[in-house]
Amino acid sequence: MPGASDGGDAGRRPAIVLVSGGMDSCVAAALAARDHEAAFLHVSYGQRTEGRERRAFEAIADHYGVTRRLTARLDLLHAIGGSCLTDEAIAIPAANLSRADVPVSYVPFRNTHFLAAAVSWAEVIGAASIYIGAVEEDSSGYPDCRRVYYDAFNRLIEVGTRPGSPLRVVTPLIGMAKSEIVSLGLELKAPFELTWSCYGAAERACGACDSCALRLRGFAGAGARDPIPYA
Amino acid sequence: MPGASDGGDAGRRPAIVLVSGGMDSCVAAALAARDHEAAFLHVSYGQRTEGRERRAFEAIADHYGVTRRLTARLDLLHAIGGSCLTDEAIAIPAANLSRADVPVSYVPFRNTHFLAAAVSWAEVIGAASIYIGAVEEDSSGYPDCRRVYYDAFNRLIEVGTRPGSPLRVVTPLIGMAKSEIVSLGLELKAPFELTWSCYGAAERACGACDSCALRLRGFAGAGARDPIPYA
Repeated sequence: MPGASDGGDAGRRPAIVLVSGGMDSCVAAALAARDHEAAFLHVSYGQRTEGRERRAFEAIADHYGVTRRLTARLDLLHAIGGSCLTDEAIAIPAANLSRADVPVSYVPFRNTHFLAAAVSWAEVIGAASIYIGAVEEDSSGYPDCRRVYYDAFNRLIEVGTRPGSPLRVVTPLIGMAKSEIVSLGLELKAPFELTWSCYGAAERACGACDSCALRLRGFAGAGARDPIPYA
Repeated sequence: MPGASDGGDAGRRPAIVLVSGGMDSCVAAALAARDHEAAFLHVSYGQRTEGRERRAFEAIADHYGVTRRLTARLDLLHAIGGSCLTDEAIAIPAANLSRADVPVSYVPFRNTHFLAAAVSWAEVIGAASIYIGAVEEDSSGYPDCRRVYYDAFNRLIEVGTRPGSPLRVVTPLIGMAKSEIVSLGLELKAPFELTWSCYGAAERACGACDSCALRLRGFAGAGARDPIPYA
């Protein structure tokens, strides 16, 4: 089972989960909450969907009865722009899941900011693991969603934190297809109805962006119905 | 000469310098400004000396006529505390330069946040290098001031940014003693009079904390007078 075991006393220490509010982070949260005292971390970075994602984060945290929750604000990514997710002058393109290059929704080095926040918090609360719902194969081609990136990040933790820290990033979904993530989430009773994946910020998910397309393909592949409403 | 050469077209691209406002970052800025179009980045993270450091940053940027400058706000490190620099409930200890462990002024994983900000900005403006004035031997024992940390970070950049990016972090002072940094700064006419190193936020530097003690020892070792006023 992914994320089921940690060595040493890691199982008795809290685990931090990066919870964006999307379906992958919801399944990562379900795994962490099953095996640890979970502490939820959310980062608002001036993305278009900031308020909507924050609402999903709080709802998922309420669902799991999480008392340790932290929302960090990061203004830098919005200030520098460079992505359609943070710069309103750049349009969100229609879905293209066969693209090979890095898409315009890529926020430069974003996951490093998120993980740095998690590591700093982990050092203060004594957490031994950081769960992130990154997915390599189905991930829109973002460089910071690949195994090789997380291996490099764990090396950075090893040399960049207090000596002897057992802390590491765990990526239980990294090798899964979206349909497998949906199946795992259903098995764990993850509250998919509370999640938000769309790159837009309308009341209903658009169903047309990369993120909606990946999600819908995942539910279809798992033979399940996505419980959120679409436009 | 440290920082004198970059391969390929890196010399014609801008270089980002992390400028805290302290003496080390001032010398790193002097090197970057000598060899590149320098873009200055400052991070305010709720540290006690936030306003004073920001003032030093702006003064050094004015000195070098830097037009590309960015100040990022990061509330997380203050929110989580854990260091005497960000948590007013933890007192700043008197200097102890023979200590072997990690001191209470250590801000967990701080430099990773700063470098992540620099990398994100670098990807947007096309910078090829990031200068940081980290110093290994004289660095108060912070884990994220060591060569091994920067090697790991450069690996993270290699795998975590757009493919083919030439970007790397350069640490021209990493192997220097504080006295050598002072000598290099004097040779480069770095504006030491504009810098701020003290962990306190009074009008004059305290002369008694680790950071003041390292600085004063550096000037003494270089046979020079520190131009800033002390209490």
